[in-house]
Amino acid sequence: MQIVHTITDLRVALKNKAHVGFVPTMGNLHAGHLQLVNVAKQQATIVIVSIFVNPLQFGANEDLANYPRTFEADCEKLIAAGTDVVFAPTVNEIYPDFNAQTQQLGQTMTINPPPIAAELCGASRPGHFSGVATIVLKLFNIVQPAVAVFGKKDFQQLFIIRELVKQFNLPIAIIAADTVREPTGLAMSSRNGYLNEAEKNKAAELHQQLSDIVNKIKQGHHDFLSLERSAIATLSNRGWQVDYIAIRESRTLAPAKASDSALVVLGAAKLGSTRLIDNIDFFALAN
Amino acid sequence: MQIVHTITDLRVALKNKAHVGFVPTMGNLHAGHLQLVNVAKQQATIVIVSIFVNPLQFGANEDLANYPRTFEADCEKLIAAGTDVVFAPTVNEIYPDFNAQTQQLGQTMTINPPPIAAELCGASRPGHFSGVATIVLKLFNIVQPAVAVFGKKDFQQLFIIRELVKQFNLPIAIIAADTVREPTGLAMSSRNGYLNEAEKNKAAELHQQLSDIVNKIKQGHHDFLSLERSAIATLSNRGWQVDYIAIRESRTLAPAKASDSALVVLGAAKLGSTRLIDNIDFFALAN
Repeated sequence: MQIVHTITDLRVALKNKAHVGFVPTMGNLHAGHLQLVNVAKQQATIVIVSIFVNPLQFGANEDLANYPRTFEADCEKLIAAGTDVVFAPTVNEIYPDFNAQTQQLGQTMTINPPPIAAELCGASRPGHFSGVATIVLKLFNIVQPAVAVFGKKDFQQLFIIRELVKQFNLPIAIIAADTVREPTGLAMSSRNGYLNEAEKNKAAELHQQLSDIVNKIKQGHHDFLSLERSAIATLSNRGWQVDYIAIRESRTLAPAKASDSALVVLGAAKLGSTRLIDNIDFFALAN
Repeated sequence: MQIVHTITDLRVALKNKAHVGFVPTMGNLHAGHLQLVNVAKQQATIVIVSIFVNPLQFGANEDLANYPRTFEADCEKLIAAGTDVVFAPTVNEIYPDFNAQTQQLGQTMTINPPPIAAELCGASRPGHFSGVATIVLKLFNIVQPAVAVFGKKDFQQLFIIRELVKQFNLPIAIIAADTVREPTGLAMSSRNGYLNEAEKNKAAELHQQLSDIVNKIKQGHHDFLSLERSAIATLSNRGWQVDYIAIRESRTLAPAKASDSALVVLGAAKLGSTRLIDNIDFFALAN
């Protein structure tokens, strides 16, 4: 496995390589990321994984400084998974005009994401999806993959990246990979590492609530607002600080109507100081 | 010369074509545009010209509805200039989510340009350079040229497009072509067509003032503010409504210092209801 740190070296490594598969990550890799690599390997002849903790997608009060950096362990996992090239640039390589000390963008150009970016996770993380869209567009232009793989765990991110590709006319196929879960149902996430033992045991409750909503909808419940409110109340009673529980049409992310059949139930909530997200997409018999 | 109207047809026309040269235009072509085509032909093996009046770069009170559309005459000129492919998409083909009636963007994603986009022409045209950067990025992704040619007449636009290419890591060489002028010195522009005969005779005064500033700087004048103010006063006395006259460092567009040697003098002013822009870039002996 080749490890490169600069755009110039990456372009040399990829010169004349056809059908490149790309998996962008922020490192601290777990089984969910390795599943993305597996999917990419099935779709491409060479697989590039980027490891870059993108400062533009973190809010001022978020965990940028503490976000776990585990580069050597990540590389061992990526070798085992059959990755061909790791691209691990510095912040300065990606954003030459960004001042990491002051968080000033300088002349840095960014993407205005679509209005949906202000809902769900965007409501409590202003600027997050602009930062995500900006780094993904830059990485796409640097890597120029034929195929890029993203996890369904970040469902809203996946939606915005599909929009990015469509609206900026990028000749890249976006593949969605299923969420990998602990035996308890807890979705794999780098941020699970912030949880203490007691929290980790409780953490599956978020998935359990989403799963309960899915079952109720499949059984014919269509009062989505009351399903959302009930799950929020249950989690709050159990000590969670709930950000949102939302039932949406899965292809547009618009609030679901009883007549919709492609649905996704999404949730975000804090356990202690750790913010967790999860979602389940499914098909229901329309009303 | 092939004429295509859809992205799909353009991709078919360009399949397996190496070293594509690209000239984006809004049509109503004049000798300045044809010079861009000539430059592209010297740099590329196949030349694509786009004709698209981009609604995103026009303000609410600007001339979008009246902007001259002369598609057949444009095609005749492009054939004569040796163009290989014309790409003339509809607004809906480029911005499927944009509502031309209401000017609502819908889910349309746009580019946040750098702070310089709020100065000079951007000060009186809010949103203009966001619209320019957005359409150029989309066209670049659609055409995927090796080389793209832009006129120096839109000097600030050229600067922002160079930033776009650099910051979004596009593997595209940007070539700047010199401004083509009438014998009077008036810079060729589609908007010259709005001028009546009397205005057309006066219109060269803008270039004359910029040219006078260049000569004075070359003679050793370094009080840039007084040079700007004097030109503004002269044009105002002659019936122009001056937007700005500005002396800038030509590679950064920062306000020029006496120690700078790479300079550009830019101006924008209205004659009647027609807004004209011009500039001259030059090297001066630094102070």
